Amino acid sequence: MPDIVSEFNDYRSKMNDTILADNNKVIKRIFNLDTNAYAEGALDVKTKELLGLVASTVLRCDDCIKYHMETCYKQGIPKEQVVEALSIATLVGGTIVIPHLRRAYEFWDALEQQR
Amino acid sequence: MPDIVSEFNDYRSKMNDTILADNNKVIKRIFNLDTNAYAEGALDVKTKELLGLVASTVLRCDDCIKYHMETCYKQGIPKEQVVEALSIATLVGGTIVIPHLRRAYEFWDALEQQR
Amino acid sequence: MPDIVSEFNDYRSKMNDTILADNNKVIKRIFNLDTNAYAEGALDVKTKELLGLVASTVLRCDDCIKYHMETCYKQGIPKEQVVEALSIATLVGGTIVIPHLRRAYEFWDALEQQR
Amino acid sequence: MPDIVSEFNDYRSKMNDTILADNNKVIKRIFNLDTNAYAEGALDVKTKELLGLVASTVLRCDDCIKYHMETCYKQGIPKEQVVEALSIATLVGGTIVIPHLRRAYEFWDALEQQR
Amino acid sequence: MPDIVSEFNDYRSKMNDTILADNNKVIKRIFNLDTNAYAEGALDVKTKELLGLVASTVLRCDDCIKYHMETCYKQGIPKEQVVEALSIATLVGGTIVIPHLRRAYEFWDALEQQR
Amino acid sequence: MPDIVSEFNDYRSKMNDTILADNNKVIKRIFNLDTNAYAEGALDVKTKELLGLVASTVLRCDDCIKYHMETCYKQGIPKEQVVEALSIATLVGGTIVIPHLRRAYEFWDALEQQR
Repeated sequence: MPDIVSEFNDYRSKMNDTILADNNKVIKRIFNLDTNAYAEGALDVKTKELLGLVASTVLRCDDCIKYHMETCYKQGIPKEQVVEALSIATLVGGTIVIPHLRRAYEFWDALEQQR
Repeated sequence: MPDIVSEFNDYRSKMNDTILADNNKVIKRIFNLDTNAYAEGALDVKTKELLGLVASTVLRCDDCIKYHMETCYKQGIPKEQVVEALSIATLVGGTIVIPHLRRAYEFWDALEQQR
Repeated sequence: MPDIVSEFNDYRSKMNDTILADNNKVIKRIFNLDTNAYAEGALDVKTKELLGLVASTVLRCDDCIKYHMETCYKQGIPKEQVVEALSIATLVGGTIVIPHLRRAYEFWDALEQQR
Repeated sequence: MPDIVSEFNDYRSKMNDTILADNNKVIKRIFNLDTNAYAEGALDVKTKELLGLVASTVLRCDDCIKYHMETCYKQGIPKEQVVEALSIATLVGGTIVIPHLRRAYEFWDALEQQR
Repeated sequence: MPDIVSEFNDYRSKMNDTILADNNKVIKRIFNLDTNAYAEGALDVKTKELLGLVASTVLRCDDCIKYHMETCYKQGIPKEQVVEALSIATLVGGTIVIPHLRRAYEFWDALEQQR
Repeated sequence: MPDIVSEFNDYRSKMNDTILADNNKVIKRIFNLDTNAYAEGALDVKTKELLGLVASTVLRCDDCIKYHMETCYKQGIPKEQVVEALSIATLVGGTIVIPHLRRAYEFWDALEQQR
């Protein structure tokens, strides 16, 4: 069985290294901001991860959905809350979001099986 | 030869079952609406399927395109009409739609070969 | 009372003249295609206008919606059919489409009052 | 001084009445879902409103942003939390979001002045 | 005659001040990056401004188009080159871009008249 | 090792033939325009290819990115310039562009290795 979680993470991690090694300042700072923006602040980390997940879902970016699902999972956010966030994204973004919902559910199952 | 039609339908059907079994009310109602909206009304089913196809194409959702192409095919809409709908979508949505047009043509061919 | 129909048409027509007078070949051909694509073909003009309306609505372009609503109106497409097309667009595109739906209804009313 | 808050709400409320009076079932159910989806569930109302705000912002819908900002404001969510949500939306959605950020700040100020 | 150039710049400048005064770190850094990214580098400033203009146009952001048109104008980029950039954006982004093209032409004329 | 460059080009070329053989006039003219728009004019070919690349990247179309990357590569545009164009696209389009940036870097490496 192909492990879609590590497949995603390996490619992501390998290509992030390639991009950062290339040393374009604007891109490096965007990567850097991407880490800072989700850190604890006026909002806690869990809420921020759900915000990132919903943003990724309505913009229909499978890789971004996977990334935030995994962080949600690691933060211990219950599936029910993740699914409610996805339901808002599906309502706001329309039925065009449904194919991404299918892959999101599949990825969450893979995260749970990976334990 | 991999059968792209049944590959698409099997995954779609399996994951829809998973999603619906999860029992989130908002998502279930959106799925339900998705069935009702394309039923005969002031507009006939064929016109509605073409509307769904064009919406899916300008929003560049391959899975949604495949779904509506198959329904168009089953409704007996001639290829020429489907292609005219796609041509409007390509004009409105721009050349960015062309890669989806390639996969749409491939899928239609697979639908015809499947008979 | 400001007439939103002629306000839209006057600006559109004035700026189209400016653009076409500028003589950029690519832009002129796209304008030209825009006329041809909606002409009678394998699909009739009414169906094509509804396709253009749905494409414009899911892509959330108010001016494009207004243009196609007026053409639908002039083609004698009943309001019930136009609204069914808009309902499909709202379902596919999500609640994010609703503000455009408000302006679409307002424009249709203005078209009817204009008679 | 034009009051952008009541201007928005009056138009929104007037046109929602017009749309709902038109009795299209699909549209009415989407409106209905839009109310249910943000009700207390596995996630609380405040979190859901922030999710709706971020979805609206990355999809760049000014009216949807205004609607969720007002609900956030009425729910007593502090400005700092609303701004953090907007900052995530700006990072995910890019600088293309900035013009909407300007109008969001202006609307929040109007909400505060309205008291 | 309302001056659409200074109207745009005044609002933009006033709200940017409001946003920056609010001191959200992520937003401030994105604003900062926005300045750095268009500075002379491997590509010259003129090419970068045209890239910014095309990105803004295919993403259909009127305010972003105005901003980059003004910078293009101040950099002395000839109208013919600006229009060729816009023609590529219209082809890639589709006829949905045309309403933004109208406003872009109007804004360029206003920039020329302002001298 | 699968060659992602020829895999992309073979499929693209095969399906373009299928589409053009189908003889829909609107689609054929759009394909035709797609060739003309990038030809030398007021802007040189290299600048136009970078414009096409940035448009493709902010609209998040992997196949369009690949196509323009290959043309950039064949035109001898240095990697540093291509990356600066991509950095502007990532800033304008947001972190949602990053997964496409990964695949863009991978494709550029494949283009270089192919020599």
